[in-house]
Amino acid sequence: MLNTGTELLLGNTLNTHGAWFGRELFKLGLRITRQTTVPDGDAIREALEESVSRADAVIVTGGLGPTSDDLTREITAEVLGIELITDEAALRSLEAFFAVRGLKMAPSNLKQALVPVGADVLPNPNGTAPGVYVPPRLNGRANCAVFLLPGPPRELYPMFHDEVVPKLKALSGIESFPPALELKFTGVGESDFHQQIDAQLAAVPGLEYGYCAHVGEVDLRLIGEEDAVRSGRQIALDAFASKLVSDDGSSLERVVVRLLTERNIKLATAESCTGGLIANRITNVPGSSAVFTHGFVTYANEAKVDLLGVSETDLEQHGAVSEPVARQMAEGALRVSGADIAVSITGIAGPSGGSEEKPVGTAWIGLAMKDRPTLAIKVYHPRKRKDFKQAASQSALDWVRRRLAE
Amino acid sequence: MLNTGTELLLGNTLNTHGAWFGRELFKLGLRITRQTTVPDGDAIREALEESVSRADAVIVTGGLGPTSDDLTREITAEVLGIELITDEAALRSLEAFFAVRGLKMAPSNLKQALVPVGADVLPNPNGTAPGVYVPPRLNGRANCAVFLLPGPPRELYPMFHDEVVPKLKALSGIESFPPALELKFTGVGESDFHQQIDAQLAAVPGLEYGYCAHVGEVDLRLIGEEDAVRSGRQIALDAFASKLVSDDGSSLERVVVRLLTERNIKLATAESCTGGLIANRITNVPGSSAVFTHGFVTYANEAKVDLLGVSETDLEQHGAVSEPVARQMAEGALRVSGADIAVSITGIAGPSGGSEEKPVGTAWIGLAMKDRPTLAIKVYHPRKRKDFKQAASQSALDWVRRRLAE
Repeated sequence: MLNTGTELLLGNTLNTHGAWFGRELFKLGLRITRQTTVPDGDAIREALEESVSRADAVIVTGGLGPTSDDLTREITAEVLGIELITDEAALRSLEAFFAVRGLKMAPSNLKQALVPVGADVLPNPNGTAPGVYVPPRLNGRANCAVFLLPGPPRELYPMFHDEVVPKLKALSGIESFPPALELKFTGVGESDFHQQIDAQLAAVPGLEYGYCAHVGEVDLRLIGEEDAVRSGRQIALDAFASKLVSDDGSSLERVVVRLLTERNIKLATAESCTGGLIANRITNVPGSSAVFTHGFVTYANEAKVDLLGVSETDLEQHGAVSEPVARQMAEGALRVSGADIAVSITGIAGPSGGSEEKPVGTAWIGLAMKDRPTLAIKVYHPRKRKDFKQAASQSALDWVRRRLAE
Repeated sequence: MLNTGTELLLGNTLNTHGAWFGRELFKLGLRITRQTTVPDGDAIREALEESVSRADAVIVTGGLGPTSDDLTREITAEVLGIELITDEAALRSLEAFFAVRGLKMAPSNLKQALVPVGADVLPNPNGTAPGVYVPPRLNGRANCAVFLLPGPPRELYPMFHDEVVPKLKALSGIESFPPALELKFTGVGESDFHQQIDAQLAAVPGLEYGYCAHVGEVDLRLIGEEDAVRSGRQIALDAFASKLVSDDGSSLERVVVRLLTERNIKLATAESCTGGLIANRITNVPGSSAVFTHGFVTYANEAKVDLLGVSETDLEQHGAVSEPVARQMAEGALRVSGADIAVSITGIAGPSGGSEEKPVGTAWIGLAMKDRPTLAIKVYHPRKRKDFKQAASQSALDWVRRRLAE
């Protein structure tokens, strides 16, 4: 894949084409072997020459507009050694595009109807730039299919689905696609996977796998034939079953909301150090309003006392970041909200406020349930403020998940 | 720039490195001439060979982890024809990283201390993978500087600023950088800038400028000689002064916390549709605990009644997303918390719950202050759930900012 556009390299525009095409092509059983971004203008020449000599198909985005630095069409024809001619049908639909909008077409738009001789024009109902498909047989120098597509997503996405997908299916001859699985784990690091199961995964014939580490989470991706993926999944579960959040790509908060909904259980939150992040994550999930009613952000000690009934004596004696305070926050949230389960967290996000006994990164989680003893768990995430909050919210939500899954 | 990572090409992870590096390098007067993404593993070899023969400096991200598909270090040494040795200092800090967390280092982590002979180790206080800098003089085959950096932004960004920027400055020989300014605006769209001030900005001699649009925010970057930047700033302020959040890159939440701190004013929040996001954003700012004490996430109607004293009659007559409820939520939060200012928000995040009269994306914001009349403002952000929450929190925080700035 070759993306052209100076704005992508200056950071004005985030290049979302890579991720979008990655997902769409993966569904077709195809992989991007390399993605390259070059500025507008002549830089595309060398990149395209390299690409067509390396790949079975090249998708180029951008540079099909009417301005002087839109050179994708011209340079592609040169690189492939094919002449450009005006396509009459493309010209008529270009004229129609302007006529429908009551606009006069500028002479500069004429070049948008130019097409390499013998190539297919891909209609663009959403903009002025038609796409181009050069089949491998036309390409004298390399046996490579070339697609030229417009850059703006609103023009690109429909053209990809309507025009490019059928051609890619025909080119690849693939009828059905290998299964893929994404397993999310929390409370375990990427290096644990490497140490404990990497060798076993590598030994499964036909299995491709990869890790992606986020704050407080490791995603394991398994790709291959059904048997291979099943074996890979079993290896991961044998080692880390209790750490598994989901095997369908669902986020931890989505899994928690799903468990609450299935069990018809209501959750309340009482947050100090995470400052509302846990509630925010839960309410990112559509349908969370059925199971989440009350959230308390008790950032100050007075708030813990006033809203949740935490004991002032315990706050003084043990400090806000302590087991009794975490317990009382969770129990207070349960009582005040009338929920069935309440999770609390109190900790030191930093950068200041740490001590030798309670360094920055320390947090206590409380978990209260009706008619069940309250739990309190100490965690330690020595990270920067925002990462600490994310990791701490991850720990708290995971304790809710485990309690619900019991 | 060379980004490695199968997850980037499969579409699991959006490649934000391109845009981020583009912006950061632009500030240094440097440009990315080409950005390439390759999968984990051996594919980096050919891409790196091409890059070092083409560029003055190559930045490689990813593939520095402990797993078997993390090969950036090994392949770079091969391509540059330099042997790898264990760096003692890197090894010690790696051991310390695990020791501090009470963890045992896996043998697989040992390879993370490998460095090409003579190269510089770039410390990584935020992760296990140290960076590597290979100066051009070590590089026998091409006069090209090579930086190997970790992929995760929380490790990459600090390392870039602390370690890479000084080396790039020295390499490029640029002593002073043209002044750059980032102005953040909210409540105005990128197309407003294009229509109203693009032509004026383009006419300022020696001024480079660019926009970066986020949900509920547009950043305008101005680069050039001092006079040019000053003129650009004036043009933007003449058009959009009331929409300016900051001219030093500060986020809206940081500006709000700064204003609260300066005025010694305490804020409380009462959130329905944003579900804790406003509190979360405020508590992302270090020092916010001095000015933010109580946050209420009253997601259900009962919570609005129980915690904030919202009238049940008004909830029934006007619905939860209404002016009187927004007002009463803000006034209730002010009263219960004892804060000096309280902001509330109640709206329809979707995907369901909308009606013809109150479509998904509608929200009411309430703003209560001691001894001042309460304000209520209706906003409309018809977006996907998470973007709606972000845009709605942006509107609410901006009203706090404007009220404080009066």
